[in-house]
Amino acid sequence: MSHSAVFAVHALLPEGWARDVRLEVDDAGQLTRVEADAGPDGAQRLTGPVIPGVPNLHSHAFQRAMAGLGERASGAGDSFWTWREVMYRFLDRLTPEQVEAIAAQLYVEMLKAGYTAVGEFHYLHHDPEGRPYADPAEMSRRVVVAARASGIGITLLPVLYGYGGFGGQPAGAGQRRFLNTPGGLRDIAEAIRRDHAGNGQVAVGLAPHSLRAVTAETLGEALDGLDEAAPVHLHIAEQQKEVEDCIAWSGRRPVEWLTDHFEPDGRWCLVHATHITEDETRAIADSGAVAGLCPTTEANLGDGLFPAGDFLEQGGRFGIGSDSHISVSPIEELRWLEYGQRLRHLSRNLLVEQAENASVGASLIRGAFDGGAQALGRPIGRLAAGCRADLLVLDPENPSLFGRSGDALLDALIFAGNTNPVRDVMVGGRWVVEAGHHGDEDAIFARYKAAVSELTG
Amino acid sequence: MSHSAVFAVHALLPEGWARDVRLEVDDAGQLTRVEADAGPDGAQRLTGPVIPGVPNLHSHAFQRAMAGLGERASGAGDSFWTWREVMYRFLDRLTPEQVEAIAAQLYVEMLKAGYTAVGEFHYLHHDPEGRPYADPAEMSRRVVVAARASGIGITLLPVLYGYGGFGGQPAGAGQRRFLNTPGGLRDIAEAIRRDHAGNGQVAVGLAPHSLRAVTAETLGEALDGLDEAAPVHLHIAEQQKEVEDCIAWSGRRPVEWLTDHFEPDGRWCLVHATHITEDETRAIADSGAVAGLCPTTEANLGDGLFPAGDFLEQGGRFGIGSDSHISVSPIEELRWLEYGQRLRHLSRNLLVEQAENASVGASLIRGAFDGGAQALGRPIGRLAAGCRADLLVLDPENPSLFGRSGDALLDALIFAGNTNPVRDVMVGGRWVVEAGHHGDEDAIFARYKAAVSELTG
Repeated sequence: MSHSAVFAVHALLPEGWARDVRLEVDDAGQLTRVEADAGPDGAQRLTGPVIPGVPNLHSHAFQRAMAGLGERASGAGDSFWTWREVMYRFLDRLTPEQVEAIAAQLYVEMLKAGYTAVGEFHYLHHDPEGRPYADPAEMSRRVVVAARASGIGITLLPVLYGYGGFGGQPAGAGQRRFLNTPGGLRDIAEAIRRDHAGNGQVAVGLAPHSLRAVTAETLGEALDGLDEAAPVHLHIAEQQKEVEDCIAWSGRRPVEWLTDHFEPDGRWCLVHATHITEDETRAIADSGAVAGLCPTTEANLGDGLFPAGDFLEQGGRFGIGSDSHISVSPIEELRWLEYGQRLRHLSRNLLVEQAENASVGASLIRGAFDGGAQALGRPIGRLAAGCRADLLVLDPENPSLFGRSGDALLDALIFAGNTNPVRDVMVGGRWVVEAGHHGDEDAIFARYKAAVSELTG
Repeated sequence: MSHSAVFAVHALLPEGWARDVRLEVDDAGQLTRVEADAGPDGAQRLTGPVIPGVPNLHSHAFQRAMAGLGERASGAGDSFWTWREVMYRFLDRLTPEQVEAIAAQLYVEMLKAGYTAVGEFHYLHHDPEGRPYADPAEMSRRVVVAARASGIGITLLPVLYGYGGFGGQPAGAGQRRFLNTPGGLRDIAEAIRRDHAGNGQVAVGLAPHSLRAVTAETLGEALDGLDEAAPVHLHIAEQQKEVEDCIAWSGRRPVEWLTDHFEPDGRWCLVHATHITEDETRAIADSGAVAGLCPTTEANLGDGLFPAGDFLEQGGRFGIGSDSHISVSPIEELRWLEYGQRLRHLSRNLLVEQAENASVGASLIRGAFDGGAQALGRPIGRLAAGCRADLLVLDPENPSLFGRSGDALLDALIFAGNTNPVRDVMVGGRWVVEAGHHGDEDAIFARYKAAVSELTG
């Protein structure tokens, strides 16, 4: 197998910033050797500081096309639940071609913003009448095809959605495109694994939608047959009403119910987990599961603030997701993750070890690398041998980064300015964004525009 | 006087969105006629939807160069007050040339982001030893020169700063560059007015720094001599400690003290006003003063959330400012102004009239146009005859705006996406940004880089 190499004057390695770093990549897109204080001979010289690509652990791709459509007062108090109605109406129409077009555009935007891997929490399985497509994996295949076309790495998380409320309540008409059984999901997962066997850019996991959408029995059945390494993601405790409904049904809060009935561990990702008690915070931290935080969506939907300070103090792991894609920027997610805590506690520099001069920017982005990689179940988030060659070259001439280096560069990256500082993006050893442009962005945007025109016309 | 004209297929006028709008501009940069359903004959055709430029009512220009340097844990709890120490150390070195270079870069960034006018709350009057420069207006002149070089409109607000705490406490060494008397300020204001007499791009007001920095006597003296039309800005109730100190000194909260001793009216801008009671909220709304909100800085500094929902319900007026310039984007300010309220109230779509289908994006940006214009004391924020020809052409091919029009475009503008949708910017009838580029951006950035290298080298 042949190799290529790139050379960075400054690169962020797992042990910290290093100089004169040579990274060797094999044809399968994996880093085979990462050496600091090395020579550039024969390597491609990169033109700015290099950091790992950011994993985006939570995405509902099709929602990209409705970004901004829900920002209206209803005249009678507004909430997450009215937003969900807008989303359901949108869902009445989406075709597989449109979903592929929207996802491809979204993934190009993610790459340009610095996300190199996505966890696609995919619940749109069936046709608008709720009937399976001739190929039951049709929609899943479309999403993975979009990811392959864009170049982003993907962990497909096909969603188990069986019910309309806690305790196995019947699903509503708005949910008919989502409904699936553990067996149906297994077939989808198998089809995707078969399509992409041996491809380091594609992985498959499982996503029980939420405790509203499963029962202990169906969740147990879905987990039973699952590959040991497959990630398991679910929405939990996003809304206060959801917590109240769970208590009314079971006498337990959602995270309590989950830990009573299952044993979430390091392969689990609890998405949102906004409304949790101190005991639940500790239980998630102790479990080794990743908290999947989506600050821009959680703000847009009025969900609330995750107790991130307490969670990190207890050793909890987190990653970030762009979720509804109202925003598509790891910077905005991490910036406002920290700002949310500052506004909650009326203090500063919270999501960082309270040591003299500890960098908040470095702490946040390293958390997102590690937790995101764990949640997506792929060897990413680190510039180290054995990991995927997923990296970002930052623009040293970006006005917010100029004159900063080391962790001060990461502080500026996360907190300062509003122009995109990501210049070049490599995923799996392949340049997918160069000088801020994606090679196929025009064709992909043209298909997106056609889809949006059909949907909103 | 000769005229030129531009033509927009869609433009946001004071009465709402209009089609086929012809805008005529005189040589002084003022709109002389704005007509909807008009013809394009002889006019320059604009290539996207047109909205007014956004006023930025609160800026400390030099702080742009320290953006991102304060994001470190101190090891002993962190707060606004430790951030202020970083800022004071930075201040030990700044020269007039550096301030001009930093301000010019900042103003170019503002223009590219859609701000066409700035209120420069200017407190850096003296040399590093606290001595007036040979020309006492040296620093003020530099800031205005930077504004003129960039093309942005400016309301210079020279700062009255006499003391180090409530009740006339002596200033500390870190404040020696700021100290000035009402008479000294009058001389500065006079010098700037003389330099730019008849220039519609420059106005001058007054900024008592805060109630910590003035006494009733010095504030009264400064107001006595002031032009009737001159805006008056002050920081107030930004931090809880400030409120506590004010109560300890006077028995009254800051806004209470101000309304006891003075009569703030429509020419006043109360910047931050974060920590206010229901009575104070009503008092500000009733006064007609503008609340100067700076959501990104207020989040970065851990100040807290202004009670925007209550304030708007009572008819209060607000505008936005980028303040410390940790962010320079009207979109991020308005987006997180609304999101802050959603996170506070765990609900959605709050800063808008609660009527069926009312647009939050439209409500926010119209608030910022009107309140910002009022606070800056210049005829801006409206595409109407008699106002400055300050406008933005949005990019209809921006992925977040594509397919949206009318108020739905404003919802997408404020809430969706992370790439800059501002394509062209006209200020005072002159194109200063075209296709996302400012004509002098390279030379201005080169001078900025030299200044930053000196300051952080």
